[in-house]
Amino acid sequence: MFAQANWVCLLLAALLIAIPASGTRYQANWESLDARPLPTWYDEAKFGIFVHWGVFSVPGFESEWFWWHWQGQNPPDPKCVKYMLDNYPPGFSYPDFAPQFHAQFFDPDDWADIFEASGAKYVVLTAKHHEGFTTWPSSYSWNWNSVDTGPHRDLVGDLAEAVRNRSLHYGLYNSLYEWFNPLYLADKKNNFTTQDFVLKKLLPELYDMVLSYKPELIWSDGDWEAPDTYWNSTEFLAWLYNDSPVKDVIVTNDRWGAGCYCKHGGYYNCADKYTPGELPKHKWEKCQSVDTQSWGYRRTMRLSELMDLPSIVQDLVQTVAMGGNYLLNVGPTPDGMIPPVFEERLRGIGAWLEVNGEAIYSSKPWRLQTENATVPVWYTSKYSSVFAVFMTKPTVYTFHLSEPITVESTTVTLLGNLEPLRWAPLHPRGLIILLPELPPTPAQAWILKLDGVK
Amino acid sequence: MFAQANWVCLLLAALLIAIPASGTRYQANWESLDARPLPTWYDEAKFGIFVHWGVFSVPGFESEWFWWHWQGQNPPDPKCVKYMLDNYPPGFSYPDFAPQFHAQFFDPDDWADIFEASGAKYVVLTAKHHEGFTTWPSSYSWNWNSVDTGPHRDLVGDLAEAVRNRSLHYGLYNSLYEWFNPLYLADKKNNFTTQDFVLKKLLPELYDMVLSYKPELIWSDGDWEAPDTYWNSTEFLAWLYNDSPVKDVIVTNDRWGAGCYCKHGGYYNCADKYTPGELPKHKWEKCQSVDTQSWGYRRTMRLSELMDLPSIVQDLVQTVAMGGNYLLNVGPTPDGMIPPVFEERLRGIGAWLEVNGEAIYSSKPWRLQTENATVPVWYTSKYSSVFAVFMTKPTVYTFHLSEPITVESTTVTLLGNLEPLRWAPLHPRGLIILLPELPPTPAQAWILKLDGVK
Amino acid sequence: MFAQANWVCLLLAALLIAIPASGTRYQANWESLDARPLPTWYDEAKFGIFVHWGVFSVPGFESEWFWWHWQGQNPPDPKCVKYMLDNYPPGFSYPDFAPQFHAQFFDPDDWADIFEASGAKYVVLTAKHHEGFTTWPSSYSWNWNSVDTGPHRDLVGDLAEAVRNRSLHYGLYNSLYEWFNPLYLADKKNNFTTQDFVLKKLLPELYDMVLSYKPELIWSDGDWEAPDTYWNSTEFLAWLYNDSPVKDVIVTNDRWGAGCYCKHGGYYNCADKYTPGELPKHKWEKCQSVDTQSWGYRRTMRLSELMDLPSIVQDLVQTVAMGGNYLLNVGPTPDGMIPPVFEERLRGIGAWLEVNGEAIYSSKPWRLQTENATVPVWYTSKYSSVFAVFMTKPTVYTFHLSEPITVESTTVTLLGNLEPLRWAPLHPRGLIILLPELPPTPAQAWILKLDGVK
Amino acid sequence: MFAQANWVCLLLAALLIAIPASGTRYQANWESLDARPLPTWYDEAKFGIFVHWGVFSVPGFESEWFWWHWQGQNPPDPKCVKYMLDNYPPGFSYPDFAPQFHAQFFDPDDWADIFEASGAKYVVLTAKHHEGFTTWPSSYSWNWNSVDTGPHRDLVGDLAEAVRNRSLHYGLYNSLYEWFNPLYLADKKNNFTTQDFVLKKLLPELYDMVLSYKPELIWSDGDWEAPDTYWNSTEFLAWLYNDSPVKDVIVTNDRWGAGCYCKHGGYYNCADKYTPGELPKHKWEKCQSVDTQSWGYRRTMRLSELMDLPSIVQDLVQTVAMGGNYLLNVGPTPDGMIPPVFEERLRGIGAWLEVNGEAIYSSKPWRLQTENATVPVWYTSKYSSVFAVFMTKPTVYTFHLSEPITVESTTVTLLGNLEPLRWAPLHPRGLIILLPELPPTPAQAWILKLDGVK
Repeated sequence: MFAQANWVCLLLAALLIAIPASGTRYQANWESLDARPLPTWYDEAKFGIFVHWGVFSVPGFESEWFWWHWQGQNPPDPKCVKYMLDNYPPGFSYPDFAPQFHAQFFDPDDWADIFEASGAKYVVLTAKHHEGFTTWPSSYSWNWNSVDTGPHRDLVGDLAEAVRNRSLHYGLYNSLYEWFNPLYLADKKNNFTTQDFVLKKLLPELYDMVLSYKPELIWSDGDWEAPDTYWNSTEFLAWLYNDSPVKDVIVTNDRWGAGCYCKHGGYYNCADKYTPGELPKHKWEKCQSVDTQSWGYRRTMRLSELMDLPSIVQDLVQTVAMGGNYLLNVGPTPDGMIPPVFEERLRGIGAWLEVNGEAIYSSKPWRLQTENATVPVWYTSKYSSVFAVFMTKPTVYTFHLSEPITVESTTVTLLGNLEPLRWAPLHPRGLIILLPELPPTPAQAWILKLDGVK
Repeated sequence: MFAQANWVCLLLAALLIAIPASGTRYQANWESLDARPLPTWYDEAKFGIFVHWGVFSVPGFESEWFWWHWQGQNPPDPKCVKYMLDNYPPGFSYPDFAPQFHAQFFDPDDWADIFEASGAKYVVLTAKHHEGFTTWPSSYSWNWNSVDTGPHRDLVGDLAEAVRNRSLHYGLYNSLYEWFNPLYLADKKNNFTTQDFVLKKLLPELYDMVLSYKPELIWSDGDWEAPDTYWNSTEFLAWLYNDSPVKDVIVTNDRWGAGCYCKHGGYYNCADKYTPGELPKHKWEKCQSVDTQSWGYRRTMRLSELMDLPSIVQDLVQTVAMGGNYLLNVGPTPDGMIPPVFEERLRGIGAWLEVNGEAIYSSKPWRLQTENATVPVWYTSKYSSVFAVFMTKPTVYTFHLSEPITVESTTVTLLGNLEPLRWAPLHPRGLIILLPELPPTPAQAWILKLDGVK
Repeated sequence: MFAQANWVCLLLAALLIAIPASGTRYQANWESLDARPLPTWYDEAKFGIFVHWGVFSVPGFESEWFWWHWQGQNPPDPKCVKYMLDNYPPGFSYPDFAPQFHAQFFDPDDWADIFEASGAKYVVLTAKHHEGFTTWPSSYSWNWNSVDTGPHRDLVGDLAEAVRNRSLHYGLYNSLYEWFNPLYLADKKNNFTTQDFVLKKLLPELYDMVLSYKPELIWSDGDWEAPDTYWNSTEFLAWLYNDSPVKDVIVTNDRWGAGCYCKHGGYYNCADKYTPGELPKHKWEKCQSVDTQSWGYRRTMRLSELMDLPSIVQDLVQTVAMGGNYLLNVGPTPDGMIPPVFEERLRGIGAWLEVNGEAIYSSKPWRLQTENATVPVWYTSKYSSVFAVFMTKPTVYTFHLSEPITVESTTVTLLGNLEPLRWAPLHPRGLIILLPELPPTPAQAWILKLDGVK
Repeated sequence: MFAQANWVCLLLAALLIAIPASGTRYQANWESLDARPLPTWYDEAKFGIFVHWGVFSVPGFESEWFWWHWQGQNPPDPKCVKYMLDNYPPGFSYPDFAPQFHAQFFDPDDWADIFEASGAKYVVLTAKHHEGFTTWPSSYSWNWNSVDTGPHRDLVGDLAEAVRNRSLHYGLYNSLYEWFNPLYLADKKNNFTTQDFVLKKLLPELYDMVLSYKPELIWSDGDWEAPDTYWNSTEFLAWLYNDSPVKDVIVTNDRWGAGCYCKHGGYYNCADKYTPGELPKHKWEKCQSVDTQSWGYRRTMRLSELMDLPSIVQDLVQTVAMGGNYLLNVGPTPDGMIPPVFEERLRGIGAWLEVNGEAIYSSKPWRLQTENATVPVWYTSKYSSVFAVFMTKPTVYTFHLSEPITVESTTVTLLGNLEPLRWAPLHPRGLIILLPELPPTPAQAWILKLDGVK
């Protein structure tokens, strides 16, 4: 574990270094930091799993924002208030939930098996959500972490090992703000002219986390109430990119201060579940949750509130066609299980990617992202291949694509089928393909591979 | 609620009545009782939902037999022993689980909506499993029932109302024996020469249950350790058939004493998950659980241990083709929710029955149950229609049935398709049908309806 | 453990026997039963300890009647209602308290040491209070007893051994009625014309209790709502006196049916804390509690609500002077400890009895019980000795007794002092004694022994 | 509440100020700080109540050091280990006890009434013991304080109000070290060359505590593992004495760093329960606990382990005679009650002080502290009076004091008696007093007041 006293030195070092930078060092300003190329593994991965797990999984009511909805916002959410009134003694507080976070069935290898089977190439776990509870033994979050209470276990560390044993990349979600941390609330009351929270809690912990777990991705969040200058974000990132043990592989997102997202940082998340209308110029990621109502586990989830497999695959395809990565979220139970309905989705995606992954992993957006001739089609490309993905079963066997420009040697196949398909060129561009019978697939998406088209 | 003191009188009445029976009354012996015709609603219903819910749902470990595996059998199941050692204080007893049976989200209307959407026509809830805990306020199970502790609610009564509001039939599962009831254990030690348990506990409670909830089905269980003479089964059934408020509609199964099942009672369950090799002569029912490892909720269930939708539909079809009813089980959580993965199965069956129910409900076995020409086929029939169900997608469009004998006016349709299909007779029997493209269905089962065949 | 099935036979036997009784057998009627002489040990013992321990010790609020005050009486006690509203989730029920009855520190030898040190000669434990929870593994109170839940231990049996190892007599308190037992409530609703509760629950359990623990005293209670004919009290007592294993030593009290107390049975308790105005003709017992507000443990007890040592000793003396036994109650914590403030009282009595017990144990009332010359005095006697107890320190050294008739050889001593005191006769009766300096004693009671007076 | 960000400024201010001090300002060094005269209220008060209350009160096992004995020391205390193994699930951690610290009956006015009735003039509550849990809402101890979890209440603040309403002085106990705080453990590992814990946790919290509650006494503890330079003790004390809102009234003890006690600070505690052999030169305080085995509540305390009233009064008298203050400790239950056995001791002292307080409050040691002529005697003095306290009842009525030098006008009285006593001088010094009959008192201590002696 990182010797806590040293973070001050590291911070000082980062500040000093930021002044006279040689050509290869990043400075603690956005101009310099934004210029860093994204490590290549990230764009190639395309598909990752997001895991929201924390004390919020214990009530498992409404969403992982339960605490805020119950006691933070004004007025409070009446459903949350009623739930507590109906089921808990008066005065029961959110921290009182922690000892019930048992995680008694948590088997990181089981989880990693499922994640691997889903075809995902990276996994991002909540190391600390807005509740402030760390799922690792943070020295700066004494008695409010998963080793001191609840699971009595280093969840971040245990999952790290299982995930890496399967050659998946490992990322950590970290909320900058903590709804109810009194140090944060005092800084906020001072209009963020003080940094007690940042200097005594946030940064020491964050440096410690990086040094302890060497994540390849930091999914920053909870930045929006204060400017990046409050969070000391650029200094942290400069250290991360220049001197941290993960400087060569680390990927970060764009939530590093109010006004920062979609503008600065590593790749862009922009808003939650953001879906761009046209091809973005900057690498981005769409995060989405199988449970459309919550990122954390909900005890009351109903089938109608969950994404089904076809919707997920469609979302993944469209995201990749638009140059994005797709980060799909599941919320484990406080017992430590991934609900079977989530497992089913994940394995379903994996089965589909087994056949169709060629069009997804390491692909690039094509010159056109989508068209709609016979049925709607989304394009990806890789080297000299173009992939046309369709998610509606055509009612006819002649399939029309209006954009690709064929040559004589062009070949067309349906992924999962060995035999080349018959096709005819159209003028001035486009082609007609004679479809075979489409194999049934629960994912309801099929891909045509066109080699030698422009 | 039934005035408890009267059961003695009722019992006496039943005994007295059993001697001089008029032609329409049943006597307390198997010959008489077995002769009773089964109320017709049951055979017409074909498909029911079984619900295992009790204190066993709280540990939710291994199965609803947890208590027995942990502390009853010799040697105990080491997994259960280890689970308790690892997660509970020494001395923690099974009854100590009861206050954690919160059922805080139990909404009987939600449940009944799902059951109705599944296409089931009856619902059977565990009113008392082998643990002895009644899910209704039994006077004979004081402080070991769902009103005195845990949910603090009449689960049997609340579900009854919701189920009946949707015109579904309502049945109750009742275990005769109770693993650890000291009165039962004393009788057992006396080789069942004493009946303290039966006279002071079991029968008063059972009469009370019938009078209070008027179930249309009693799913008796836990009979195997003692003869029906110990349980006073024939006397009880004689009362049930002659004088109870449900005498005209009540259906019972065959578990009324050692050696009784598959031989006496109402319909036959025989063993759990029993599957006959040929058409049984007596009405029967196959009970099956979505979770193949347990009837009660398991916190650790994994997808690979659950039946998928095609397997369930296949099982349902084969059971109905063989003249049986299909009772499919789900285990709700101690919170009172039906896990979404179960909901998905149930709604999937319902969607399939929406199209194909015509071949199932009120059907009769055909003269042949199954054949295998193009692909395996299972037959049912109704009036002049014969239904051929197949669950393998044929690779060709010409579908061969070798048994039906056609006439010229014979028509063939695919359920869900309006247009009649083209077909050609074969000699001396059978026909070739030209299949349309099969609509995709997650259930993977399609039905050909043949009108005017023999 | 008693084979439960046999109680029916025993009951029948009792009934049969009651008809043709030989001279030494008691009949099942009060005339016969009341004629039984009380076993001598009881009157000689004089001082016993009463122990109220049960699920009521867990809330430990208001008194052992908490359940009734909260949910039984109409209107309920607002303090109890508020306590539950303030500290427990809605719907929390009384049986839900049982798993918190841990008794983790219960050491019966520690208790018995304290009881022995108090000078008591018998101990009476609540085997079942009105809540119905048995502190022993009753077959007729499944999952509502101290072995199935809570302590997971046979409290009655464990204390029996420790108490008897110290040659103290052992008695059991047993409530006939159970406030909320549905069988009892049904009988009550039927104006006690039915006996479901008595025949299925109460009597089998009571026979079992006697056969299992062989108590020397049964402290019956909770009789007042129904006549002794409902309880079958005379039949039970006839069995107890004629055929039970404790027939020669058993002592009972007088609470065996409405209108029964102070009139029938063994010794008389009459009302709780009953204090007769003049010497009763029948052996009696005063029960009193150190905590004047409760018999069971109260978490909120304050010093001002507790009896101090002088009050207790005074109460004991007056009771014995009036021919009664004194049964002093303490309420252990749900942890299994006797609160030190109770221990202090008990050891204080013991220290006083160490010196003064001669005047208490095996004593008889004198011809006069009390007089008030110098200060109030209470008399006891044994053989040729008369004891004069005073609890007010006289302000002078000449102590006047107006009743004893002296002779020349009369000797007077102060208990605890070896030397005889100087005294002078008065006429026609009485004497003046020259007191020595009185030794200080926290009990504030001193005894003059007069040998050879009338 | 103190704005946390300002403590740095305050600290800087303290440092700056310490350099050029005017005559009335204290410098941050022991020479200067030790020269401060103790506020007079403290020496006059003589008798205070110490209250140990925290999460340790929940297990209430062995002592308030339970956590350390269980999991800190090497090897651990086998009794603590066994207790946890026997009664809690594996993995249960100390922080998991916090939600059970209910304090549901805590009525600060009740406590303060008892404290006032004891005759104490100040009350010291544990604001934070070595466990680190603050009994007030410290911003630097988020989710490990009595408002965020457990009582959900500001115990320090609530008691402050009740105590001050009765004109008692209010002090706070504060442990410098925290056994298991990871920041502290890291500093310790660095041989206290780093001060992460002190700068991020301890000092901000301590300043905050002073500013929030304005205590008149800080009872510092837990200093011994590190030098005062690690704790920044002198800087804190300089601020406390110069600039804090309590600078004129604050009293502190001597536990401010290894080697500090009995040498530096305010009054001296030296070791726990320290008893000097001769009259100390520096004002001191003896802290003592009614429960000789523990400062915190113990569920298992037995009478023999508690100090009785005479021992306490004797201890108080000897302490005051030697110039000390007496701080008597009680441990409330986790429910918030002061056990009656403690209440009895406290009210007993109060009753004795009601009569004899004249010799205690505001007294000074006499030129001699003790002598032993007739029986052992301890002296105090006030103005021209000398008080001779004896705790053994003499067997004769002539009481010899060998030290006081009488004059003719000398008068002698027994406190509580109005009439002057007869006495005769001895030569060359001393006197013989004719004692009256001593009034009985549970405290067993009497005081002779001598006016006009040397």
